[in-house]
Amino acid sequence: MSLLDVLTQYRKDPSLAAGPASLLPDAETLDQSDPLRHKRDEFLLPAQSVYLDGNSLGPMPVAARQRAQAVLDQQWGEDLICSWNKHSWIDLPQTVGDKIAPLLGAAPGQVICCDSVSINLFKVLSAALGLNPGRRKIVSQRDNFPTDLYVVQGLQQLLGDAQRELEVLPEEEIEGALDDQVAVLLLTQVNFRSGYAHDIARLTRAAQAHGALVIWDLAHSTGVMPLELDQWNVDFAVGCGYKYLNGGPGAPAFVYAALRHHAALRQPVAGWMGHQSPFEFSPEYTPAGDIRQFLAGTPPILSMSVLDAALDVYRDVDIRQVKQKALDLADYFAARMMEFPSLQSLELATPLAHIERGAQLAYVHPQAFAICQCLIAEGVIADFRAPNILRFGFSPLYLSFRDLDKALERFAVIMKEELYALPEFNVRKKVT
Amino acid sequence: MSLLDVLTQYRKDPSLAAGPASLLPDAETLDQSDPLRHKRDEFLLPAQSVYLDGNSLGPMPVAARQRAQAVLDQQWGEDLICSWNKHSWIDLPQTVGDKIAPLLGAAPGQVICCDSVSINLFKVLSAALGLNPGRRKIVSQRDNFPTDLYVVQGLQQLLGDAQRELEVLPEEEIEGALDDQVAVLLLTQVNFRSGYAHDIARLTRAAQAHGALVIWDLAHSTGVMPLELDQWNVDFAVGCGYKYLNGGPGAPAFVYAALRHHAALRQPVAGWMGHQSPFEFSPEYTPAGDIRQFLAGTPPILSMSVLDAALDVYRDVDIRQVKQKALDLADYFAARMMEFPSLQSLELATPLAHIERGAQLAYVHPQAFAICQCLIAEGVIADFRAPNILRFGFSPLYLSFRDLDKALERFAVIMKEELYALPEFNVRKKVT
Repeated sequence: MSLLDVLTQYRKDPSLAAGPASLLPDAETLDQSDPLRHKRDEFLLPAQSVYLDGNSLGPMPVAARQRAQAVLDQQWGEDLICSWNKHSWIDLPQTVGDKIAPLLGAAPGQVICCDSVSINLFKVLSAALGLNPGRRKIVSQRDNFPTDLYVVQGLQQLLGDAQRELEVLPEEEIEGALDDQVAVLLLTQVNFRSGYAHDIARLTRAAQAHGALVIWDLAHSTGVMPLELDQWNVDFAVGCGYKYLNGGPGAPAFVYAALRHHAALRQPVAGWMGHQSPFEFSPEYTPAGDIRQFLAGTPPILSMSVLDAALDVYRDVDIRQVKQKALDLADYFAARMMEFPSLQSLELATPLAHIERGAQLAYVHPQAFAICQCLIAEGVIADFRAPNILRFGFSPLYLSFRDLDKALERFAVIMKEELYALPEFNVRKKVT
Repeated sequence: MSLLDVLTQYRKDPSLAAGPASLLPDAETLDQSDPLRHKRDEFLLPAQSVYLDGNSLGPMPVAARQRAQAVLDQQWGEDLICSWNKHSWIDLPQTVGDKIAPLLGAAPGQVICCDSVSINLFKVLSAALGLNPGRRKIVSQRDNFPTDLYVVQGLQQLLGDAQRELEVLPEEEIEGALDDQVAVLLLTQVNFRSGYAHDIARLTRAAQAHGALVIWDLAHSTGVMPLELDQWNVDFAVGCGYKYLNGGPGAPAFVYAALRHHAALRQPVAGWMGHQSPFEFSPEYTPAGDIRQFLAGTPPILSMSVLDAALDVYRDVDIRQVKQKALDLADYFAARMMEFPSLQSLELATPLAHIERGAQLAYVHPQAFAICQCLIAEGVIADFRAPNILRFGFSPLYLSFRDLDKALERFAVIMKEELYALPEFNVRKKVT
C-alpha cells in the first residue's frame, strides 16, 4: 500500500487514522529505503529546526559556502577585475543557465541566469507580445503569484491601457477562455498558495492551437517537478534560483526561451551585457543572436556564483526521484497529521492527485498566522500566506521522514495546548 | 605650488619635466600629509599589485568580508527564511539607499538600492517620459556609456519608433540642442572613456528651463564626486554599487528619484516588492507611494548585504576630501609620467581643469590594449577601452602616492623595453 493509498483510506474513513494502529510504515524504515538520503550531507542545515520552507528559501549547500569563500578571498579579494576572464565571471549567466537547462528538459543554449523573476517576466512578456502582433489579450489566473499579474499591469500601463487587455480567470475557466484573440497565456505551474499544479503540456497545446504563445512561471517547480519544456513546445519560461535550487536569498532568476524564437524576438530591457559584442562599446544596440539577448546589466557575481555552486547538488540526481520523494514526504505528512486528534482542525487545501500537485501542502486555519509563528518558535519552519494558509514545503534533497515525525509531534502539542494563542505569536511582522 | 600647477608647467615646457630636478614633492611626503591615509587599513588589497581600476571594480573592504561571512553562516545558514524579519533583509534596499543618499546630496527617502544600472535606467526613463507627455525627444551624448543609449533604443522599440526620438549629440552640442521639444536629457556625468565631467547643475538648469526632465547616470561619480542632487534640483539619477562604492562584483545599483515626483510617477517594471503592501498578495498592483515603488523582484541579499557593509567605509569621510585626493593622485601621476622619457608616447585625453574631471585619466596609444595586458601582468592593474584608451582610476580611499611611483616605474620599463609587443599581450580576451 503506497503512502497515498494510506492517506486516501484515512480520508475516506477518518476512524482508521484515529485508531490505535497506524497504517503508515515507520519513518525510520522510509528513510532507510530513500534513494536520496545521502544528499542531506551536501547541506548545512540549521541545528535545531525542521525546515519545511525550502519552497520559499532553500538552505545552504556545502558547495555554495565554499564557492562564496573562493569568490571573496581569491576572485574578488586577490584577482579583482581580472576575474572577469580568469574566473570566467563573464560566462556565469550562460554557465548557470546551462546547468539549469537539464532540470527544465531544455537543450543547451536556451536558458540564461539573470535578474529577478519579475524583471524576467517583463522581458519575456514584452517579447511574446512582439511575436504575436495584432492580438491584444493576455490570459492569466486570478490567484497567480501577484508579481506575474503586476508585470502585466505595469506593461499595460506603459503601452497604454487600450492596447492590451489582461483577463484574469479562476483556475477552472482558463482552458475554456482560450480563443483566437489571445496573444499570450501566462501561468504559474504550481500555485504558490494551494500547491495545485497545472498540466503544462495540455495547456500549452490548447493555447498554441489558438495561435497564442505561452509563458510559464516555474518558481515553485524548478528543481522538484520533472519538466520537459522542449518536448512540450513551451515558448518562454522564467523561474527562481532561491527556492528548490538552494541558490541563496534573492539568488538570480532565469529565462528559458525556445530556440525557434531567438532570431525574431526582441526584449525591451536592452543593456550592454545583452549586446552582440559588449566590449566594442558601440552606440548602436545589436542584440546577441542567442539567449544572451536577455541580459541587461552587470550580474551580481557573488549571488550568481553561489547559485552556480548550489546547482552541483543536482549533478547526480534523477528529477523524477526528487518529485516522487516530495510526494511521499507530503503524503506521509498529511496521513500522519490525521493520526493526531489535535491537528484535525486544519483543513487540507491541496489536491491529492499526484498529477495535480507540486511539492508543498497548504492547510487552511483561521489562526494560520499565529500557528505559523508558534511553529517557527518551536523550530518547525513553515510559512503563512494571507489570509489563512499555512504552507509546508517538502524539499526532498535534505528532508527525512523522521524530520516530519519530529515536526508533527511539536505541531500537535502546539495545537493541543493552543500555544499559538499567546500574544507573542499574534504580532504582525513585516514579512509573513 | 599645487600638483596641478606642476603638471601645467610641465605641459607648457616639457623640458622642465625632462630635466634632472623634479618639481614634484616626493610621494612619501604627500602620503604623510594625506588626511585619508588611515582609510587604507579598511581594505583587503591584493598583495603584489597596484590597483588602478577601482573605477571599474572596487577592492574588498574588511567590513564587507565580515558581513558576507555573517550572512552566510548566521543569516542564511542558521536563521534562513526568518532572516527577512530577524536580520531586516526586507529593509535592505532602503537601508542601503539611505546610506548612499548623503553621497549624492539627497535627503533620506529618495534613494533605493536595486537591480542594475541598465534596468534602473529603463525604469527612470519610462517614468520621466510618463511625466512629460506630449514631448517626444530624448537627448543624450553620442559617447555616453553604451548601456544608456541601448536602454533608450530598447524602450523606443517597445513603444514604437514613431513615438520617441533619440538625439545623440557630441558633448559640445548638447546644451545648444535643448529646446521645448525635449522630454528628457539623459547624461552620464563622468565619461567612461575620457573622464570628462559634466556640470550637472548647469545642464540641469538649462534642460529644466525648457521644461525637460533630467536623468543623470552617476556610475563613475558616486563615492568620489561631491554631488548635490537635491540642491541642483535633479529629477532622477542612477548609479553603480561596485565601482567607487566597493560593493563587490556586480553589486546592485541604485535609483534616485526626487521626492516631488513620487506621487505622480509610474515606472513600468512592476513587481511584488514595489507594491504598497507586498505581503497582502493582492492581485491589483498598487505601487508603494514612496521610493520603494522602484523595486520589482526579490533582491540578491548576499550581494546587497556586502554593499551595505562596504558603504560603512564612508561613515567618517568628507566627500570633498575624497575628490581632492583623487585629483591630487591624478595630477601627481600625470606630472610624474612626464618625467619618464619612455612614457611620452602616451597622449592624455582627459581635460586638466579640475572642474571638468572625474577620478580617472585616459591615455591614448595605438597599442593601448597590449600595454594594458602587459601592465596587468606586471601588477599594475589598469584597463583598456576600445579602440585605443588606457584608463587609470584613482580611487582615493586606499591608494597612496607611493603606489603611483611603484606603478610608474614598472610602466616606464614596459614602454622602454617594449615588453607589450610580446605575443602573449596581444591576444584578445573576452573582457577587455
